[in-house]
Formats: sequence, C-alpha cells, structure tokens
Amino acid sequence: MSTAQPATPATSTLPAQMRALAQAARAAARKMATATRAQKDAALAYAGEALLARRAGIEQANAEDLSRAKERGLSGPMLDRLKLDLPVLQRLAEGLKQVAELNDPIGQELSRETRPNGLVLRRVRVPIGTILIIFESRPNVTVEAGSLCLKSGNACILRGGSEARASNAVLAEALREGLERAGLPADAVLAPPTADRAAITELLQLDDLIDLAIPRGGESLIRAVAEQSRIPVIKHYKGVCHVYVHADADPDLAVKIAVNSKLQRVSVCNAAETLLVHQDLAKTLLPEIARALLSGGCELRAEPKAKAALEAAGIAQAKDAGPDAFHSEYLDKILSLKLVGSLEEAVDHIETYGSRHTETIVTRDAAAGQRFQQLVDSASVFVNASTRLADGFEYGLGAEIGISTDKLHARGPMGLDELTTYKWLGDGTGQLRG
Amino acid sequence: MSTAQPATPATSTLPAQMRALAQAARAAARKMATATRAQKDAALAYAGEALLARRAGIEQANAEDLSRAKERGLSGPMLDRLKLDLPVLQRLAEGLKQVAELNDPIGQELSRETRPNGLVLRRVRVPIGTILIIFESRPNVTVEAGSLCLKSGNACILRGGSEARASNAVLAEALREGLERAGLPADAVLAPPTADRAAITELLQLDDLIDLAIPRGGESLIRAVAEQSRIPVIKHYKGVCHVYVHADADPDLAVKIAVNSKLQRVSVCNAAETLLVHQDLAKTLLPEIARALLSGGCELRAEPKAKAALEAAGIAQAKDAGPDAFHSEYLDKILSLKLVGSLEEAVDHIETYGSRHTETIVTRDAAAGQRFQQLVDSASVFVNASTRLADGFEYGLGAEIGISTDKLHARGPMGLDELTTYKWLGDGTGQLRG
Repeated sequence: MSTAQPATPATSTLPAQMRALAQAARAAARKMATATRAQKDAALAYAGEALLARRAGIEQANAEDLSRAKERGLSGPMLDRLKLDLPVLQRLAEGLKQVAELNDPIGQELSRETRPNGLVLRRVRVPIGTILIIFESRPNVTVEAGSLCLKSGNACILRGGSEARASNAVLAEALREGLERAGLPADAVLAPPTADRAAITELLQLDDLIDLAIPRGGESLIRAVAEQSRIPVIKHYKGVCHVYVHADADPDLAVKIAVNSKLQRVSVCNAAETLLVHQDLAKTLLPEIARALLSGGCELRAEPKAKAALEAAGIAQAKDAGPDAFHSEYLDKILSLKLVGSLEEAVDHIETYGSRHTETIVTRDAAAGQRFQQLVDSASVFVNASTRLADGFEYGLGAEIGISTDKLHARGPMGLDELTTYKWLGDGTGQLRG
Repeated sequence: MSTAQPATPATSTLPAQMRALAQAARAAARKMATATRAQKDAALAYAGEALLARRAGIEQANAEDLSRAKERGLSGPMLDRLKLDLPVLQRLAEGLKQVAELNDPIGQELSRETRPNGLVLRRVRVPIGTILIIFESRPNVTVEAGSLCLKSGNACILRGGSEARASNAVLAEALREGLERAGLPADAVLAPPTADRAAITELLQLDDLIDLAIPRGGESLIRAVAEQSRIPVIKHYKGVCHVYVHADADPDLAVKIAVNSKLQRVSVCNAAETLLVHQDLAKTLLPEIARALLSGGCELRAEPKAKAALEAAGIAQAKDAGPDAFHSEYLDKILSLKLVGSLEEAVDHIETYGSRHTETIVTRDAAAGQRFQQLVDSASVFVNASTRLADGFEYGLGAEIGISTDKLHARGPMGLDELTTYKWLGDGTGQLRG
C-alpha cells in the first residue's frame, strides 16, 4: 500500500506548500473528530503491523540518516538515539498496542446541567484539532507522539530533526498506512516534505489551521518556537528540580529521596538538580547525604556555607557552586548544594532559580509539608517522595506526550486528556434570551 | 488612604519600568495565592466602598478623559461607553458584591487517587499567577476584570485604552485600597504608568513573570497581541454566529430563534450574523422568517438563490450578499442569508466562514441535532435554542471575563474557574522510582 504523502508541485512557494499541508491536516482532523474508538484502535494495530512489515525500508532509510550523521560527526550517544533496529521497531509496535488499550477520551461528558430555562447544557470532550509537533533527534517520537494524537482524534503535523529526516518519513508512512487501512484519513499524520528550517516558521503563522504547537527538545528550540508562534504553544523549558530537606526530616528518608531524585536516572527532566538542606542539619544529615551521593558517583557543587560544613565533616570533594550553578539543568551526575535558614528561604530559592517543574520536601511535620506545597509554584510538589515520580506513567495517565512547565491548559505530565478540549452543547426546546 | 502606585524613576527605560512592574505583580501574585476567601471577599467589599467614597475624584478623572475624547472627536456612543457617573459606580460596586458572593475556586480538589506505590496524588486548583489584561474603551473593565482576577487569587496588570487612562487609574486605585485594607498586597492590581503603546510590546515579552495575556477589544488589537506575545494568550477574535434551519424545523421555533439570535441585542458577539436555511424551505419558511426579521428592522443580505426565493415570495427588500458578507461580524441589524442543500453543506459553510464561537440548528430530528453538534467545531453548539444564550451568566458561571474562541485552556464563556490552573500534589512516605 502506498501511503507516501502526495508530492507538492515544485513550482509552489514554501508558504503555499505549508498552507496546503496544514489545510490537508485540518480536513483530516475534521474526519478524525468523528472517528470511532474501534476505527482508531484498528489504525493503531495496522500501523504496528506496518512498522514490522516495512522493516527493510525503515532500516534502509535509517541507514541513510546514520551515515549522514556520521559524516557530520555526530557523537556516539546521538547516533544511538537515531538508530532504528528490530528491537526498537518491536518496542514501537508494542507501544502502539498499549495506546490502543487506553480509554478513548473523546465524547466524555465533563459536566451536564439543566439550566433554569430548561436548556440541557453539557461540556463534552472533543479533540483539539490539528497539532504541530516539532522535535529533535529520536525518530521514535514520530510513532509515539503520532499514535497519541491519533488515539485522541487529532490530526498531527510531525516535524522532526533534519538528522532523522528519512527515518521520520518512513515511520510516518507506517502510521498513514494504518489510518488508511482503518478507513481513516492518512493525512491525519503528515510531515513537511522539506528540510528547510523556514518551514517551521511558516507553519507557526497558520493559526487559522493549526490549533496547538508542542515543541520537544532543547531549550533554544522551545524558545524559538514560543517567540515565532502565533499558534498556542505548550512548552517544557527545563527541569531544575529541587529536593529540600527540612530540619526535622527523617534521616534515612532524606538520604533515599535525595539519592533517588538525583541518581536513579540523571538524563531526564524530573531528576533533581539542586539539594537544599536546612542549616540545622549542617553537621549531621548534610554530611550523611553528601557521602551517599558521592559514593554514587555524584559531583557536588556547593555554596560556601555548605562547602565549609562538608569540609568540617571531613568531606573535601565538593566543588564551588559557580554563578550559574543554581540555574543549571545538569542532566548528569552533578548536584548543586545549598544550606537554607528556613522553609521560606527554600521556597524563595526555588522561586528564583527553579523551572516550576517538580520539587519535593522531606519532613516529618505534615503542616510544613502542606505549607511547602502551598507556597511552591510548580507543576508537581511532593512531600517525602522522589522527584522522579513526576511522570505520566507514574501518575496513571497511561501515556505521556510531554511534561508542561506552562500553566495554561496542561500542567505537569500530559496524557491523552491533555490532547483534548471541550465543546459546550446545549439542547433546547426553543429557549431564547429574555 | 493613598493607594497610588509608586512612581517609577524618570531615568529608567521603558523595558526596565515594565520589568519592575511585572516583578511587583509576580510578588503580589505569590501572596494572593495563599489569601483566604475571607480576605479576598473583604478586599472586594472595601473596594466597593472606595469606589463610592472616591466618587468626586473618579468623576474628575473621567471628566478629563471625556474632554480629551471630545477634542479628539470621538463619537457619541464611544463617549457614552467612557462615561462614569454615580449610577455606573453603583453598578460597579454592586458587581463587586456579586463577585464576593461567588464560590472561591482556589483549593478545590480536582482529583485524588492513591497510586499503587502508596503516593496520594491530588490535583488541586490554584491561581494562574499574573494576568495581563489589555482592553479598549470602557473603563468598567478595570473593575470587572480586576475583581475576577482578585477573587481567583491572581495578580493582574490592567492596560486600558489611552482614551480612558485617567479613569482607569483612579478605578485601579479603588481596587488597590480594597486590597490594602484587607491586608492583601495592593500590587495585585497594577496599571502601566505610561500611555506609551510600546509598553504593551515590552510586557508581552515577559514570559518569566506574566503567565497569561487576555486581550479584549477589536480584532486588530487581538491579532497584534497574538503576534507579539511570548506569553500564552486567550483570544476572542470575533463572533460570526450561525442559525441553521433544517428542512424539518418547527416553523414557529425557527422564526423565534432566528429573530432572537439576530435582534435581541445586535452589538454583542453571540448575536447571529448569518442565517442558513434548507432549500426545501425556500418557498415556505424562508419568506416567513424574512418577514419577521424585516419587521424587526433587520436588513437582509442574501446570496442569489435566497434572494430569488424571497423575490418570488414578494419580498423585494433583500440586498445582495457581497463578497465579504459571510465573513462579516456586523454587530448591527444586518443578517447574511443563504440557502443550503443539506445539513452537511451548512456545516461546511460554518467551517469556511465561521469564527468557532456559537452556532445553532433548528430541527425536530434529534439525530440531525446530534450530528450538527458533532460536526460543528465551535465553542458552543445548540439545538433549538438562541445563539444569545452562549454567555457566562446563562451558563451559570456567575461571572464572565470573556468568551474564548481558542481551544486551549478555556473554550467559550470564561468564568472564575478559567482564571485558575492546577498543581499536582503528592503526599508520600518515602516513595522512590524503581
């Protein structure tokens, strides 16, 4: 089955090409909005089959990307993230099955009320429409993000990084084949047929056709999208997550939560980047936590008081926290360290340096925990739990399209529900305005 | 009580002034987030008292605005909208009382679940933070929008039109006095202390300090804000609302709903601007509806088939629908008119020309009504009810800060809940990521 996107006339300009692409997506979105769950789940199943059936073509396209990336001198970890082989395709196909098993959010009644005039007023969950996803690096995102948009009845335009262009195109074709076999519009998954970076700028102007832009990648990509876009953007700038150890913290819990938050997996946005410890613990718990982190291979960057306290306890390995330390998202085995005089000082530090992603307090005092949760302005605020738990799967969302550090529409982990909006439906018998 | 905003040093640049203003708002927002309902309601009551106590100063400031507006040749209706007199101040004070009586949305638990690992995970409603409201003309908006932001625990920066600058400033001072008397930060209500239009551009860049921008006014203002803003914007472009009369419509209901949707109040966004009638009704119901509208003083602008049908029925007054007719938000006693061959053609027309605000179908067939509700991509979709019912008060929201034609965060009428977001709060006993 040929599910390649129709070629655009070579004569058309980039703005005209991008408008035509967005129009095709919008037309597909209208059909997707009335697709049944059975159709959408069938499309996901067929797409999984297509991924495996098209393995040879996918591996060939991926080999092209890999060889170009090597020529351009991409690093080993970058090449790893780019690579599509049978185990990766099998995992992607398995992921499609899992998405099919999730409940269909569309049609859910969020509220229902009979107004005094007799009008039956309901708010009903509907797809957002057309979603533009701009991402870097891993071609897996084509399948993962595409499948979530499909399940939630949206059309999507998937714009991946240039280094994975051939891979992204063939993966999108597998999704398109799935849609077509299920009787749904293939154009519910589209990719701009050009490597020109100006295509993104053009797409971001089309607020009459595209309803939402989700950039996924480094901070500079996300800032550029937010600056250029007329379309609403849901952003995730970075995760500078904090662990605050209150004066009354249970020592064992504090060590475990600090170590797990920092070291369980360092390359992810919900890993802790800064440890704040109450100054009353400078001689007792602070050295204990520091030893546990150091023995886990973690570098510590401490402000002067914390560094002095560690040295007094015989710990000489801590480095100085430089001027950017507390703004840093290390994504590595490095942790910034600071002593604070009170819970309020911890909160103020988080307000100044944090990214409003996830913070946790370790305390035995329920009132202190509540106060921390009330004062900290972040998407997720925990008491006595690891920051690493701020995650769509841990929250039971069943899927995760990203973690929003914005406050509008979606905050924190975003699942299928966050890819929907609502309509107000009113059923009347001739109700008028008086 | 002096509640004037502190003067900014004359030496500081506009960007520095606007950043300082936004920082003051953000600091106030942090305090507002933990304000109790009693404090917020007291602030609203004190603000109402201040409005009346400050009547002389408000009328003097308003007289300055009015005399400047007359010099600039503003029209009679514009001057009316600008005028603040005792009845207007009394209405505003009454409005403040009504806002105080509304439930406080803050702290509401949206969900609560114990995860398999024992983490108690809640989503709790919190204020958005700092909201920038940019509006034109009516100074009333200072009090109305300011009070809703206050009640929902937000800080707001209110930027009104230059023609009402003096009036807006004194109204904001009344709100600031109310806040201060209630022990809340006066800076939860701020107004840029400059008439320079570039101030708006500067404020719209401050996405680290301002969480949401709501432009209220003409389409060109709203488009300019959407283009310039790095801050999320909730927009309301225009209301090109449709009444579709299906082939099986009850004639009496169709006449009533068409007349009420168009003529009950013509200057508002939820008034109908286009009537679509099934072609089977060209000789019967179409002329009947047309006569009712014409006798209500409504001008009809009909496409050729509809015009011919009206002429055949002896109605010669209809004008031609020009090329822009179906895109027009008349806000006047004018209605565009078109015959369509099917419900689907009506839906396609709405998709092409509508503004995704509010549409209604008149039909006796429940299945047709449902199909219309499913296919039309608008904030409000009614069956057998007037488009004029799409309104925060009619929906029981108790208040309305605007009507969103966007799909993100808030769709349709926006009340207090739509001025809030949520946090994920996790209460643990040492839960770690495995």
